[in-house]
Amino acid sequence: MSKPLLIPMPGNERLAASLTTAADAEIGRILVRRFPDDETYIRFETKIAGRTVTLLCTLAHPDDKFLPLLFAAATARELGAVRVGLVAPYLAYMRQDRRFKAGEAVTSNCFARILSDQFDWIVTVDPHLHRHASLAGLFSVPTYVAHAASQISDWVRHEINAPLLIGPDSESEQWVAAVARGAEAPYVVLQKQRHSDREVQVTLPDLARWRARTPVLIVDIVSTGQTMIETTCQLRRIGMPPPICIAVHGIFAGTAFDDLIAAGVARLVTTNTIPHPTNAIDITGPLATEIRSALHRPEIKPQH
Amino acid sequence: MSKPLLIPMPGNERLAASLTTAADAEIGRILVRRFPDDETYIRFETKIAGRTVTLLCTLAHPDDKFLPLLFAAATARELGAVRVGLVAPYLAYMRQDRRFKAGEAVTSNCFARILSDQFDWIVTVDPHLHRHASLAGLFSVPTYVAHAASQISDWVRHEINAPLLIGPDSESEQWVAAVARGAEAPYVVLQKQRHSDREVQVTLPDLARWRARTPVLIVDIVSTGQTMIETTCQLRRIGMPPPICIAVHGIFAGTAFDDLIAAGVARLVTTNTIPHPTNAIDITGPLATEIRSALHRPEIKPQH
Repeated sequence: MSKPLLIPMPGNERLAASLTTAADAEIGRILVRRFPDDETYIRFETKIAGRTVTLLCTLAHPDDKFLPLLFAAATARELGAVRVGLVAPYLAYMRQDRRFKAGEAVTSNCFARILSDQFDWIVTVDPHLHRHASLAGLFSVPTYVAHAASQISDWVRHEINAPLLIGPDSESEQWVAAVARGAEAPYVVLQKQRHSDREVQVTLPDLARWRARTPVLIVDIVSTGQTMIETTCQLRRIGMPPPICIAVHGIFAGTAFDDLIAAGVARLVTTNTIPHPTNAIDITGPLATEIRSALHRPEIKPQH
Repeated sequence: MSKPLLIPMPGNERLAASLTTAADAEIGRILVRRFPDDETYIRFETKIAGRTVTLLCTLAHPDDKFLPLLFAAATARELGAVRVGLVAPYLAYMRQDRRFKAGEAVTSNCFARILSDQFDWIVTVDPHLHRHASLAGLFSVPTYVAHAASQISDWVRHEINAPLLIGPDSESEQWVAAVARGAEAPYVVLQKQRHSDREVQVTLPDLARWRARTPVLIVDIVSTGQTMIETTCQLRRIGMPPPICIAVHGIFAGTAFDDLIAAGVARLVTTNTIPHPTNAIDITGPLATEIRSALHRPEIKPQH
């Protein structure tokens, strides 16, 4: 029997190459280009009739990636793919999960519904869940979640001498505690207040007993970088060294990367869920495990 | 009974204002903005429960407009809209209407299928149909097509002294003939060969008997502008004046607008299906007529 195909959408080729072996899949190719009028042209360059197809597409800056992804999924089915799954190492639209003001779009639900209509299963890494306990509350197809915690623990243990892990808020405490256990390091969490998209206020706990340690701030997503920048300022104010900053997902909105460097973070590290020069922690292992689970657990195909 | 709501997506406000009276609708408001991470935030600022909602969204450069449009349609339904229609004065993805090479996405079909899932009806202006005789071959919901021909005829009759209308290819002959009849002017058509996205070769017919006339080239879409530029060169070569150029839909890919000015077109005019400084021909009248037809013919609501 032929192996399942893993087909990277543009920009996902590097992770696809490392996932292929680990997930026991075969790499497939899709050509995606833009016409001069900005419409997208798509062509599968690998035969997919009768194959199980997994599209790999990280969804940072999702809007202009989305329609090509829907075209690819629909075309894979038309061309005879047996099942079509999605691996989105970063899954977008997790934040607006309820209607805070009348008239608002609950984009979490809409986004999950559209993806559930097009794909037989979804695999991702550490989704940014708030009010939903799991992705099962959003998606109607099976979802599989890989975790970056033990990869981050390993990195911290090998790279940082005497670390003090810092979580951004009480919501992240359990997660930071798990990373800290793996890294055999102590941890604290900040108090964080978000005033707007770009304004964040953080309050440090008492760090008197940790002055000899290297602060390591861990967040799930770095977007504008304000949490990292504010924490760096606060640490410096009390005479602590600037922190090493780790994010699972490095979005780096606008000038965020330059702003972080200017703020004097000691080091900035991300996992490879979103390709970026800061990628230093490889999530191939846990991601491949979840892909294998998705591929080998036969699902009832949704009606299309 | 309250009037139907016409709600412009960003960039469509001007046409909405002129359509509202003509279509006997009431203007509604939607707030669409981007978070720093490029996700879209949407909020209806007009109450829409129990109302018929028409979203106005021209679809030039469609990919990054599409997901916000799907969010808006889904949210309108969640908020209790009775019916949700789409007015897309320019309708994208009409070109790739079959699989020319193995593995290609037939984006015309995919695009129409997704829109048919989200909207109860679609109104557009002069869609770029090739192999499908009408939109009914693509969409599973009712479609309504407004034509710009008589508006173009009127403009030519009032603005151009002794015009000679020129159509870009034999495919456009019937359409150009209709415009010419309305403008009470003679017409010819070019022979056109497209070599690639950006390379077009045109051949002029014998124009000896039309030397005293002002050439007026009419196309449905100006994208790279190559057809207009090539025709301008050919006319100059045989000692004719540069043409006045009219397009229904002015997409102006990349540097097309500057290229056309540099090529020396005498005048460049578009309809207002896509907002652009060249908009000089108003399609409010025929578009409002089709919107009224869509609003007043009750349809069976598709299952969602």
